[in-house]
Amino acid sequence: MSHRILVLNGPNLNMLGSREPEVYGSHTLEDILAGLHTIADERGAVLTDLQSNSEGALIDALHQARGKVDGVIFNPGAFTHYSIALRDAISASELPVVETHLSNVHAREEFRHRSVLSAVCLGVVGGFGADSYAVALEALFRHLDT
Amino acid sequence: MSHRILVLNGPNLNMLGSREPEVYGSHTLEDILAGLHTIADERGAVLTDLQSNSEGALIDALHQARGKVDGVIFNPGAFTHYSIALRDAISASELPVVETHLSNVHAREEFRHRSVLSAVCLGVVGGFGADSYAVALEALFRHLDT
Amino acid sequence: MSHRILVLNGPNLNMLGSREPEVYGSHTLEDILAGLHTIADERGAVLTDLQSNSEGALIDALHQARGKVDGVIFNPGAFTHYSIALRDAISASELPVVETHLSNVHAREEFRHRSVLSAVCLGVVGGFGADSYAVALEALFRHLDT
Amino acid sequence: MSHRILVLNGPNLNMLGSREPEVYGSHTLEDILAGLHTIADERGAVLTDLQSNSEGALIDALHQARGKVDGVIFNPGAFTHYSIALRDAISASELPVVETHLSNVHAREEFRHRSVLSAVCLGVVGGFGADSYAVALEALFRHLDT
Amino acid sequence: MSHRILVLNGPNLNMLGSREPEVYGSHTLEDILAGLHTIADERGAVLTDLQSNSEGALIDALHQARGKVDGVIFNPGAFTHYSIALRDAISASELPVVETHLSNVHAREEFRHRSVLSAVCLGVVGGFGADSYAVALEALFRHLDT
Amino acid sequence: MSHRILVLNGPNLNMLGSREPEVYGSHTLEDILAGLHTIADERGAVLTDLQSNSEGALIDALHQARGKVDGVIFNPGAFTHYSIALRDAISASELPVVETHLSNVHAREEFRHRSVLSAVCLGVVGGFGADSYAVALEALFRHLDT
Amino acid sequence: MSHRILVLNGPNLNMLGSREPEVYGSHTLEDILAGLHTIADERGAVLTDLQSNSEGALIDALHQARGKVDGVIFNPGAFTHYSIALRDAISASELPVVETHLSNVHAREEFRHRSVLSAVCLGVVGGFGADSYAVALEALFRHLDT
Amino acid sequence: MSHRILVLNGPNLNMLGSREPEVYGSHTLEDILAGLHTIADERGAVLTDLQSNSEGALIDALHQARGKVDGVIFNPGAFTHYSIALRDAISASELPVVETHLSNVHAREEFRHRSVLSAVCLGVVGGFGADSYAVALEALFRHLDT
Amino acid sequence: MSHRILVLNGPNLNMLGSREPEVYGSHTLEDILAGLHTIADERGAVLTDLQSNSEGALIDALHQARGKVDGVIFNPGAFTHYSIALRDAISASELPVVETHLSNVHAREEFRHRSVLSAVCLGVVGGFGADSYAVALEALFRHLDT
Amino acid sequence: MSHRILVLNGPNLNMLGSREPEVYGSHTLEDILAGLHTIADERGAVLTDLQSNSEGALIDALHQARGKVDGVIFNPGAFTHYSIALRDAISASELPVVETHLSNVHAREEFRHRSVLSAVCLGVVGGFGADSYAVALEALFRHLDT
Amino acid sequence: MSHRILVLNGPNLNMLGSREPEVYGSHTLEDILAGLHTIADERGAVLTDLQSNSEGALIDALHQARGKVDGVIFNPGAFTHYSIALRDAISASELPVVETHLSNVHAREEFRHRSVLSAVCLGVVGGFGADSYAVALEALFRHLDT
Amino acid sequence: MSHRILVLNGPNLNMLGSREPEVYGSHTLEDILAGLHTIADERGAVLTDLQSNSEGALIDALHQARGKVDGVIFNPGAFTHYSIALRDAISASELPVVETHLSNVHAREEFRHRSVLSAVCLGVVGGFGADSYAVALEALFRHLDT
Repeated sequence: MSHRILVLNGPNLNMLGSREPEVYGSHTLEDILAGLHTIADERGAVLTDLQSNSEGALIDALHQARGKVDGVIFNPGAFTHYSIALRDAISASELPVVETHLSNVHAREEFRHRSVLSAVCLGVVGGFGADSYAVALEALFRHLDT
Repeated sequence: MSHRILVLNGPNLNMLGSREPEVYGSHTLEDILAGLHTIADERGAVLTDLQSNSEGALIDALHQARGKVDGVIFNPGAFTHYSIALRDAISASELPVVETHLSNVHAREEFRHRSVLSAVCLGVVGGFGADSYAVALEALFRHLDT
Repeated sequence: MSHRILVLNGPNLNMLGSREPEVYGSHTLEDILAGLHTIADERGAVLTDLQSNSEGALIDALHQARGKVDGVIFNPGAFTHYSIALRDAISASELPVVETHLSNVHAREEFRHRSVLSAVCLGVVGGFGADSYAVALEALFRHLDT
Repeated sequence: MSHRILVLNGPNLNMLGSREPEVYGSHTLEDILAGLHTIADERGAVLTDLQSNSEGALIDALHQARGKVDGVIFNPGAFTHYSIALRDAISASELPVVETHLSNVHAREEFRHRSVLSAVCLGVVGGFGADSYAVALEALFRHLDT
Repeated sequence: MSHRILVLNGPNLNMLGSREPEVYGSHTLEDILAGLHTIADERGAVLTDLQSNSEGALIDALHQARGKVDGVIFNPGAFTHYSIALRDAISASELPVVETHLSNVHAREEFRHRSVLSAVCLGVVGGFGADSYAVALEALFRHLDT
Repeated sequence: MSHRILVLNGPNLNMLGSREPEVYGSHTLEDILAGLHTIADERGAVLTDLQSNSEGALIDALHQARGKVDGVIFNPGAFTHYSIALRDAISASELPVVETHLSNVHAREEFRHRSVLSAVCLGVVGGFGADSYAVALEALFRHLDT
Repeated sequence: MSHRILVLNGPNLNMLGSREPEVYGSHTLEDILAGLHTIADERGAVLTDLQSNSEGALIDALHQARGKVDGVIFNPGAFTHYSIALRDAISASELPVVETHLSNVHAREEFRHRSVLSAVCLGVVGGFGADSYAVALEALFRHLDT
Repeated sequence: MSHRILVLNGPNLNMLGSREPEVYGSHTLEDILAGLHTIADERGAVLTDLQSNSEGALIDALHQARGKVDGVIFNPGAFTHYSIALRDAISASELPVVETHLSNVHAREEFRHRSVLSAVCLGVVGGFGADSYAVALEALFRHLDT
Repeated sequence: MSHRILVLNGPNLNMLGSREPEVYGSHTLEDILAGLHTIADERGAVLTDLQSNSEGALIDALHQARGKVDGVIFNPGAFTHYSIALRDAISASELPVVETHLSNVHAREEFRHRSVLSAVCLGVVGGFGADSYAVALEALFRHLDT
Repeated sequence: MSHRILVLNGPNLNMLGSREPEVYGSHTLEDILAGLHTIADERGAVLTDLQSNSEGALIDALHQARGKVDGVIFNPGAFTHYSIALRDAISASELPVVETHLSNVHAREEFRHRSVLSAVCLGVVGGFGADSYAVALEALFRHLDT
Repeated sequence: MSHRILVLNGPNLNMLGSREPEVYGSHTLEDILAGLHTIADERGAVLTDLQSNSEGALIDALHQARGKVDGVIFNPGAFTHYSIALRDAISASELPVVETHLSNVHAREEFRHRSVLSAVCLGVVGGFGADSYAVALEALFRHLDT
Repeated sequence: MSHRILVLNGPNLNMLGSREPEVYGSHTLEDILAGLHTIADERGAVLTDLQSNSEGALIDALHQARGKVDGVIFNPGAFTHYSIALRDAISASELPVVETHLSNVHAREEFRHRSVLSAVCLGVVGGFGADSYAVALEALFRHLDT
């Protein structure tokens, strides 16, 4: 059966490609999502996506995904570091969620070393630029296939 | 004169009943609100309610409640632990607010032991499951009657 | 069957009414206990009480309550913040204990924000002045009735 | 050429004038904005403004301001202390932003002493009540003129 | 009118003279009290005293002193560092209390540098060995005479 | 010459056997003391014992033991973690004291990892259930025999 | 009536212009003071100034300013971060003091994020280079005129 | 050109499969390496591997890999949390290193949340059990191909 | 033989009487010194005094006092909390120094609770207003007479 | 059946007897092992031993002991305080390990108060000098016999 | 060309030789400077020196040294631990400064382990008593010659 | 008599010259040792050296050096920051050890500011690049000659 995957992107990721390319690379979010759709098609998976700068909208998305998708690729952006509400939403979704980061957060400011979400995620992938998403998708497929 | 009470619920509380019942019990938010309405009716009080996963919507609700209700039962969910903006909104509302929790937050993860809201609330009730709301309502009635 | 309730009060609560009324209100402990007895009588419950300034005496009381009462209303006063021995006594009692405070401890000094007891109590009620006890009793009745 | 300035106001600032006047003064946000428009007119500057209680809406506003305005006067309210997402939005806007506060945050509670935004702002002005905005505008004009 | 003074001594001070003389000196508590009585007699003051190793007994003594004495010389021994219950008892007594130490606690272990009592005492005297009591008495007389 | 040993037990240890057997085992304190008496008899040692839930009573016991016994087996229970007054009493007793714990405190809650007593004790034995006492006695005999 | 303003500069500000221009800009202190005098003249204000590398001299200047000037522009340099004695001197002067910084201290080393002075100052201006002084003067004039 | 990859495994990973399968899964290290060799063969890559319980041997291996391999998959086990010497060895190797973990370290003990290595690694993959290695290899191939 | 005493006063104490009388009282430093001279004359002691707002001048004074006076009454003002250089000067003076405070520093801001000087002083007296000096002198006389 | 015991000694314990005898006593490791062999012989137990200054060698030894011995006496020396790799090796060995120290680590430097190993050991024995090993062996025999 | 060296000494170093010889040795500052002059003469270097107990005077000296000397030997005494103003003065001097200490500060009190100056100094030499200066001079000559 | 000196180098120092030259310079360890041998020959000293990436091997070397050499130049590399086992080995060697660093560790990452070794070393030299070794040797010769 084909897997249903939600790709969720948090605050400021709509600015990718224009914003601070030395940190985040020159790919836009559209570029990245196009690449993921190609991979999903090859695998016969169905991929939906959402980007929002609003914590509440991301929580809503996770609630609605429950029972509707099989797994989530989630780049929570800066919410990684303080949104305990998103943490509870991940728990409430009862879905395998892969926390995904473009940059290596441990090579950045001290306050970006702490994740309040990791403990309730399936796993973490980060540091590979735009490739982080494809790598996270690979991880999620492997998880869903076992 | 009959009391006007706002019951405010924060992020993820719309998932009550289905989400992690070993922590939050098997009652849905609708069940709880129905129970509170029964009590309010007996007391001749008027009860309105709102649930939102959005911090901004909860702040708006507190602003609008000012001068329109006599007290608030507020379960801020995970916002308890970091939303200083909600703290300011509680202050700005100039209303007696009872911070209400289903579970005993002190028996859970360390980061749930800290509340940035308690200091500006009238009082705190927590740990009694769905009963926490009825107990908080009892506390609010007693406060408003003195 | 009628519930048997122990109302336990810790250090300095014998001074209630005379001591710092702006923080603790003007009710004496006798006033509060009289009010609780009235409620208990209405409910057909049996209520015993003890106040002590001695940590050891409070531990002894919890040990002796084991199997003799159905639940405890406990205002531990300042022991809230450091008496790990009382925490162990609450655990050893295997009774539902409601931690009860007159004032809102989070609106007071920083060192009063920490409770070493909460994690082993059923729940917490605080901030409602003398009403906190009645509210805690309400919470305990609801717990025992389910 | 005339400068285009965005005046951005965060949570609870819509309550100015009615809320806690001993802390925030008796001017409403409308009063303050009227004063700023007068100054802007004198200087031949174009001034737009937005107030929101929603972190997501403020992030959106900063994204949309990019390339459309020359500088931002931003009173982030309580988001000052925890919204790393707003910090990233300020960086992504590539605009000079003046962090502006009505009150002297260092004379208030300890948790208001920390700003997660200051490091990515051009500068900080605070403590002068309603005048803080005019002073921040003066600072921004001077910056844009050099 | 003659002043009524209570000299209160906490845990282990009954062992003075025999215990660790390099820290506490070779005077017994009896020696010290005898010296204080001599001074009190000269000043026409009435001096009562109590030593206890029990936190509860010291709290009881402070409660009973309320309205019966004019001031207290209190060496709380190790309770200085953690007994918040004694702090509340000092507040409840509404008496001027001079915190008194034989040794200079700041020249000893780190955990002896913190006092939870100082903030509610009139003042502090420490480091002068057995003389600390006489000096504290001098301070108390001066306070009562103004 | 036969050794005189005091076995001192702190708060809640009177509940052993009934209280939380998964943590503390199913032996009662009486069982444990009976076993120690058997060992002491074999060794020709004289063993006295005391249990109290009161910090003051334990301090008194240590004072009175000075010069009357040759060593102490002391399970301070929860006082381990905060009673600086007991620490001073151990110092004042000038006796070799073996700090003894039934459970491995380091495998329990974080706040049980800290001992304010260890630094003034001869040594520590913990984690062996009821056997901890016999092992501590063995350690004390070896110490007294050298 | 014309306002009397003291411009006070702390340690190392005499080196402005030559020292680390990438942090502090290329204006000398003389340049900045000349600019301030021009503004003061336009406003009919009287401006005096002092620079010292000595904490004691700055304290003396604040004491002497009491009753002689109407407000102070103070760039305390590195003393910002540790001179509690200057904090007490600001309080003792009973003057409105504007804490002024050339650079944005929050974009620099961690230890420069803390100010021990801010809490007793009227307000803070920083991050606008040499313009910070003019902006601070504007703020002070507005304060004195209301 | 075919990529040369070193798979480096730190302390206790030789015990995989037998040790704590609820945390680490039931695959042995041999199973995992066999799977990686299959992938590498498909990709035409050359894969070497080393496991050691010795920090020094792992440092030596990183030194020798410099200029001999194109990238490293490194599961540092417990050295993740304290071996600054390994951090320096990763820097000195000037190779892209993917920090790889079987389990989600953020869902385990607090002390496992800190990595002293992440900041000098290309990226991090963790939480996918034995799949973590294949996912890390995928990430490394993607990195080397760009 | 008559004792030679130095009374040393640190920063801002020259402002006593006019500055914040609700904290420091209405006595000027001259009043206090006059009172001390009267006491010294009665005791046949020789008293010299110095006040300075400069840390360096206070260090010089302590160096010069070495061998010239028998003891020091030192109110270090705000230097109490950070001047490690004064601490070293006290040590270098090899004189008995009584740290003296007008107010009870533990009842004030958190940063005033820490003294870097106490550990090298003979003892501490504080909280008795202007009387603190006379009490400290009493303590110093008692020390010098034994 | 006879018990098989491994006695494992960590870094610097080969220097026992010559190194700092005031801390560690004058017994060499050979003396101590000889004493343990005597006890083991009496009990019919088989005792092997290993000392190494290398963390890796100790980890290897614990791995190899798995299934080959019945329990371990382990003095980890300084590795006690930071070797999380040894902690994992103890867990992986699935053996009862008694953490054993010659000195009382709580009476030494602050950084020696923390053990990263205790939580995964059966229990702890320390402070009895060379006797600590015999006492630990006693504890291990008692454990294996129940 | 001959090197011009400034030897700068901070607070209390004028007391060397008489003050606490067990910590600082028995050499006076004059002895040490004489030794340095001998070495400088041999090397054809010109050496000037200054000692002051005043932070301001040391800052002035560093400012004046700029462009006049080639390097600085600086023993900042206790200012090492808190004088951020001296740190800024070292930066402003744009000179190679060798932080020099007589004693090993890491073997003394905890608060002496932190240096706010080291990060802006060329290097650090400490622990060799009076020899530290000669060693620092050797380091400075080597630096200036390359 | 000629001095016997051991030059000990810890992890990653074998990579010197190729690794991160902007931090560590372009000299290889061989270059540095050759320079030290030249100095030693001039002084008639005998110099042996060892580099190892293994903590255990460095501990062994310190043990074996005891009684065989007169002093040690030790660059512990990253072990500086956490190897308490090396600290104990330095103590056990009873040799004067000079802690030596190429770079100024205080100008690097925060975690490199802490040394667990300094307190048991004779002294520290750091920040002078390859010259640090020669300077440390100078310091050691001076120490051994007095």
